[in-house]
Amino acid sequence: MTPDEAGAVLAAEAARFAGFGWMRGTSGNLSLVLSRDPLRLAVTASGRDKGSLAPTDVVVVDRDGAAVDPGAGRPSAEAAFHARVVERSGAGAVVHVHTVASVAAAARHPDGIELEGLEMLKGIGRAADGDVVRVPVIANSQDMGELGDRFDAAWEPATPAVVIAGHGLYAWGADAMQARHHTEIVEWLLELVAGA
Amino acid sequence: MTPDEAGAVLAAEAARFAGFGWMRGTSGNLSLVLSRDPLRLAVTASGRDKGSLAPTDVVVVDRDGAAVDPGAGRPSAEAAFHARVVERSGAGAVVHVHTVASVAAAARHPDGIELEGLEMLKGIGRAADGDVVRVPVIANSQDMGELGDRFDAAWEPATPAVVIAGHGLYAWGADAMQARHHTEIVEWLLELVAGA
Amino acid sequence: MTPDEAGAVLAAEAARFAGFGWMRGTSGNLSLVLSRDPLRLAVTASGRDKGSLAPTDVVVVDRDGAAVDPGAGRPSAEAAFHARVVERSGAGAVVHVHTVASVAAAARHPDGIELEGLEMLKGIGRAADGDVVRVPVIANSQDMGELGDRFDAAWEPATPAVVIAGHGLYAWGADAMQARHHTEIVEWLLELVAGA
Amino acid sequence: MTPDEAGAVLAAEAARFAGFGWMRGTSGNLSLVLSRDPLRLAVTASGRDKGSLAPTDVVVVDRDGAAVDPGAGRPSAEAAFHARVVERSGAGAVVHVHTVASVAAAARHPDGIELEGLEMLKGIGRAADGDVVRVPVIANSQDMGELGDRFDAAWEPATPAVVIAGHGLYAWGADAMQARHHTEIVEWLLELVAGA
Repeated sequence: MTPDEAGAVLAAEAARFAGFGWMRGTSGNLSLVLSRDPLRLAVTASGRDKGSLAPTDVVVVDRDGAAVDPGAGRPSAEAAFHARVVERSGAGAVVHVHTVASVAAAARHPDGIELEGLEMLKGIGRAADGDVVRVPVIANSQDMGELGDRFDAAWEPATPAVVIAGHGLYAWGADAMQARHHTEIVEWLLELVAGA
Repeated sequence: MTPDEAGAVLAAEAARFAGFGWMRGTSGNLSLVLSRDPLRLAVTASGRDKGSLAPTDVVVVDRDGAAVDPGAGRPSAEAAFHARVVERSGAGAVVHVHTVASVAAAARHPDGIELEGLEMLKGIGRAADGDVVRVPVIANSQDMGELGDRFDAAWEPATPAVVIAGHGLYAWGADAMQARHHTEIVEWLLELVAGA
Repeated sequence: MTPDEAGAVLAAEAARFAGFGWMRGTSGNLSLVLSRDPLRLAVTASGRDKGSLAPTDVVVVDRDGAAVDPGAGRPSAEAAFHARVVERSGAGAVVHVHTVASVAAAARHPDGIELEGLEMLKGIGRAADGDVVRVPVIANSQDMGELGDRFDAAWEPATPAVVIAGHGLYAWGADAMQARHHTEIVEWLLELVAGA
Repeated sequence: MTPDEAGAVLAAEAARFAGFGWMRGTSGNLSLVLSRDPLRLAVTASGRDKGSLAPTDVVVVDRDGAAVDPGAGRPSAEAAFHARVVERSGAGAVVHVHTVASVAAAARHPDGIELEGLEMLKGIGRAADGDVVRVPVIANSQDMGELGDRFDAAWEPATPAVVIAGHGLYAWGADAMQARHHTEIVEWLLELVAGA
C-alpha cells in the first residue's frame, strides 16, 4: 500500500468518525501499517479537520513516531503511541477518537472498565458469557514514552482497545475495517457504561 | 421474491438502521421470508458492515438456520432464531438490532418491560389506553435452541418484539416495512424507559 | 395553494422531522390550511412512512377532520384535532411529532411545563426574561372531541404548542416554516427539561 | 473578503451547526471580520433558517452592531455583542449557537465552568494537565451594552469562549475554521459537564 492509498482509506474512515461526533475540533488520529520491518505507519496529519481530510493528509512515521519524509506535514505527537500500539499488539490499523462516553466511563472506572455478559463482546473476539473483559484505563500523559509504558503495563492482549483517562479511546484491528468495527463496539460498550 | 430481491431490500433496511447507530460493528441481522413450506428465509450474511451490504450479502436458510446453498457466505448463528420467530409469529420479516437502550432497559427490567398509557403503543397494534403491554425480556444464550425455547415460553402473541438481555432487540412484522416500523416504535419505547 | 402543493411542502417537512427521529414508525402528522371559510386542511395521510411521503400523500379534510374527497387515502383520526388547533389559534400550519423528550417532560410535569429566563423563548414570541411561559400538558384521549375540549380548556394563546401526556407534541405557526421553527424550539426546551 | 464571500463561508458553517441541532428554530448567529479599522463585521441575518442560508443572508455591521447598509436585511440584535467579542479578543470569526448542553452546564455552574486534566483542552490552546481552565458564565441580558460589560468583566483572555446563562454558547477564533473547532471542542466539554 502506498502512503496515498493509505491516506485515501484513512480520510474515508476519519470522515465517518467525524460524522459520529467522535473527532470534534481536529481531535483524534488514525493510522495504517505500511510495512513492519522497518516499521512504517501512515498517520493522519495533525491540525486538520477530520471530516474533510484529503488522501495526502498523512505523514509516514517510523517506530518512534518521527516523520520519515517531513515534507508532508507535521505528524501528531501521538504517532509514537500509535507505533507502540502496533508493535505491541500486531495490529494493522489503529483508531484514536475523542468520545464523551470514553472520558465519562474512565472517570467512573479509573482502574479499568470491566464488562461481562454482553453479546457485543463477541464483536471484539471475546465471549458473550462467562468472560470478564477488562478495557484498560491508563492515566494521560504528554510524554509518549511514559504513555507507552503505561500501555505496556496495562494492556490486555485479548482486548483490542484502551481508554486514556481524560483523553479518549484507542482501538485497533488487523485492518482499517476491523479497527473501525472494534472502535464502534467498544464505544457502544462505553456508552452503556457511561449511561448506567 | 428471489434471494437477490430480498437482499436488496435487506441491504437498504440495514443501511438505515446502521445510520441510526443500531448496528455498530457488524452487529445485528435482518431476514425476509421467501417461502413458508418449506420455510426459506433470506438472512443477512455474518461479519459484514451493515451500512454497506450488497444485495448478494444474504444467505438462504431453512427452518434450522442452516444454509440451503452454502456457497453464498456463512449465515449468522442467529439465523436459527430468526426462523423460530417466523414460525411462531407468522412474521414475514424480522429485524435484530443492538441498541444501547434495549440492553439498558432490560438490565433494569429483567422480567419484562411493562408499558401502558402511551399513544406509541398503537404503532405495534396495541391500545394507547388501558392495555398493559409487556415486551418480554429473555436471558441470552449462545445455544439457539435454548434461546428459542426461552422465546416460546416468554413471547406475547400481541407484542411483535422481544428483548434479549445483554444482547439487543428483535422485532418483526408482516413485511420489511412493518418490521421497520415495529422496530422503530419499540426502540422509542425502550429509550423512554431507559432514560426515565 | 393546491392540495398537491401543500403535499409537497408537508412531505419535505415530514422528511426533516423523520430525520430527527421525531416520527418513528408512522407516527405524527402535519397539516396546512388551504382555506378558512369553509375550513379545508391538507393533512398527511395515515399509516405511511414519514421519511418518504409523496406530495400526493395528503388528504383534504373539513373542520371535523372528515375527508372531503375520500379517494385520496384515510386521514389520521387526529385530523380533527389539527382542525381544532387551527380554528382556536388561527394557525396556518400544524406539526405533530412523537418525541421521547415531550413524553418524558410531560410525565414529570403533568400540570404543564413552566419555563422562564431562557433566550430560546423568544423564538416562540415570548420574552427571555420575566415572562413565565407555560406549555400546557393535557391528558391523552382517543376521542378527538374530548381531546379538543381539553385543549380549549388548557391552551395558552401566547404559547404555540401543547404537549399531550403519553403521546407527543403539537406546535403551530402562521405557515410551515414558522410551525417548523416553533416545533424545533419547543422540543429544545423539552429536551432541557427532560434532561435536567 | 467581500460580504458575499463572507456570506458563503457563514452559510456553510451555519448549515453544519444546524445539522448538529445547535441552531434550532432560527437561533444563533455567526460573524466574520471584514476589516478592523473601521471595524466591519459580516453577520448572519436575523430570522432565517440557519440550515439553508444563502450567501446574501448577511448584514455588514459596524462596531455598534448597526447595519452599514441597511438594505440587506435586519442584523441580529446580538451583532453588537459579536463586535464586542471581536474588539476584546482580536478574533476574526465568532460562532454563537444555542445548545442544550451549554444551558444545562451553566445552570449547574452559574459562576463559571472549571475544567482541568482533559486532553480536549489542548484544542482551545490550553494544557491537558495542570491548567485550570475556566469557561466564564455570564448572566443573560437583552441590553447588548450590559451583556458586553459582563463579558468584559468575566472574560478569560486564554479561553476562546463564554457561556451566557439561559441562552447559549459563544466561541471564536482567528478564522471561521478555528472558530468552528473551538465551538466543537467547548461544546464537547460542556456535554461532558452536563452529563456528569
